[in-house]
Amino acid sequence: MRDFDEHNITQSVIERFGNTPDPRLKTILNSLVTHLHDFIRDVDLSFEEWQAAIKFLTRTGQQCTDTRQEFILLSDTLGVSMLVDAINHRHRDGATETTVLGPFFVNEAPALPMGANIAPNTEGEPLYASGVIRSTHGTPLANARVEVWQCNKDGFYDVQLSPTLNLRASFQTDAQGRFAFWSILPTSYPIPYDGPVGDLLTATKRHPYRPAHLHFMISAPEHETLVTHVFVKGDQYLDSDAVFGVKNSLIEEFKPHASGTTAPDGEPMTKPWRSFSYDFSLKADR
Amino acid sequence: MRDFDEHNITQSVIERFGNTPDPRLKTILNSLVTHLHDFIRDVDLSFEEWQAAIKFLTRTGQQCTDTRQEFILLSDTLGVSMLVDAINHRHRDGATETTVLGPFFVNEAPALPMGANIAPNTEGEPLYASGVIRSTHGTPLANARVEVWQCNKDGFYDVQLSPTLNLRASFQTDAQGRFAFWSILPTSYPIPYDGPVGDLLTATKRHPYRPAHLHFMISAPEHETLVTHVFVKGDQYLDSDAVFGVKNSLIEEFKPHASGTTAPDGEPMTKPWRSFSYDFSLKADR
Repeated sequence: MRDFDEHNITQSVIERFGNTPDPRLKTILNSLVTHLHDFIRDVDLSFEEWQAAIKFLTRTGQQCTDTRQEFILLSDTLGVSMLVDAINHRHRDGATETTVLGPFFVNEAPALPMGANIAPNTEGEPLYASGVIRSTHGTPLANARVEVWQCNKDGFYDVQLSPTLNLRASFQTDAQGRFAFWSILPTSYPIPYDGPVGDLLTATKRHPYRPAHLHFMISAPEHETLVTHVFVKGDQYLDSDAVFGVKNSLIEEFKPHASGTTAPDGEPMTKPWRSFSYDFSLKADR
Repeated sequence: MRDFDEHNITQSVIERFGNTPDPRLKTILNSLVTHLHDFIRDVDLSFEEWQAAIKFLTRTGQQCTDTRQEFILLSDTLGVSMLVDAINHRHRDGATETTVLGPFFVNEAPALPMGANIAPNTEGEPLYASGVIRSTHGTPLANARVEVWQCNKDGFYDVQLSPTLNLRASFQTDAQGRFAFWSILPTSYPIPYDGPVGDLLTATKRHPYRPAHLHFMISAPEHETLVTHVFVKGDQYLDSDAVFGVKNSLIEEFKPHASGTTAPDGEPMTKPWRSFSYDFSLKADR
């Protein structure tokens, strides 16, 4: 076929994908081509705008490194990540709500024992975190894997600063499904905005901030892995998270405690500190 | 706002772009978010599929270099480039039809005199190309700039092989609007398929070939710049161009001539050669 015009080209591209062996890939490509072409027709995209889009996407790809994922940032700021999250977690049935993975997860965080400090030699207000992992039926899940990662007091993740892992670890729950660790209070922070996604936020007068939170990824045999955050109650960005990730059920009070008090693990505290406790519910595997 | 779900997130993201100062950017982003979210909802995109998409886009960006534009290849193979072309050239009013720019245009091709050879010391069947540049009213356009680029006899562009420019040049038309040059016969060729776009074509059982053609970009004062090809009549890929670029009006016979004949510029030919003549019409500027 020849002489494609703006009306017949979409169906022709779809037909060209007609021999795709994987039916799911074929479905996805047909829908992608349909919606992408509709977008271009709707806005009557100019050649110069197309060139700008090619340049933007190229810069976005080239900004990516082992420790920087600019396409995830783009997906996050366009609400795509949270939409995908919502679609894939329609029926919680009492399980803890989910939110974005974000671009800072690292697979090989150190495995630490119950009660360890994930932020040794790191400035910040001490934070004692604890909770219980249960199934949605209320059964405590022993030996569940609790992976946690968070930013430092200045809003940076370890991978943004140096090759040394810090402020991240994985724990195993005890026989009662409990986990506990020491860390420092995270702060609200801007997503990295020195790349194309930052330029997009600037051009659209959007701020790049996320409210303070700890990331959790929790997995246990025969249960769906849970990817979520615990947000710090009272943060000024809870209603305008740059990545649309906040859910009320994930906000927890990070209780302030005075110097001279004793922590739950018996540690006598010589400066002010915080604590929170959050219990997570995991859904059984389908 | 908090607790976004798959139904309310789209409008919320659009509202977040509400302060965009440039009204055109705002229009484009609103439409992009709407269609992108519709696509994701339509196919019920899984988290693993989203991860695969992030990885594919990242690889596509990282495949790009000064001489390789993988996002243009992606746009071309999804029919996006030809759709943008069609939208921006709705009313030709007798002007020559347009087709894709492609990823191999180079700004600084050498300016050569009328009749020069753009393929010196290059193997292939000699080709004599000529034509006239006119306005749509029929007036010959003197001093029009005719930029031409093409692949070699093996289907490769200069930039794919070495830093030395070859098989590309710019010419100026004479007082009668004429241009002429020597080259070699181009061949049909696969678009670069050793990257993510090639993987997509393989996974969807699409061939990567384009029918043989010469690229032209023609500009003259007070006229719209024309980006187009001249295709070689009889090529086996005219009906299945990997980038949907073929128009019947752009196909020309590349006439074969025997050894021992004389070329239009008086050159005695000692081997078989080809020639084509194509006249281009440029539309007056809006």
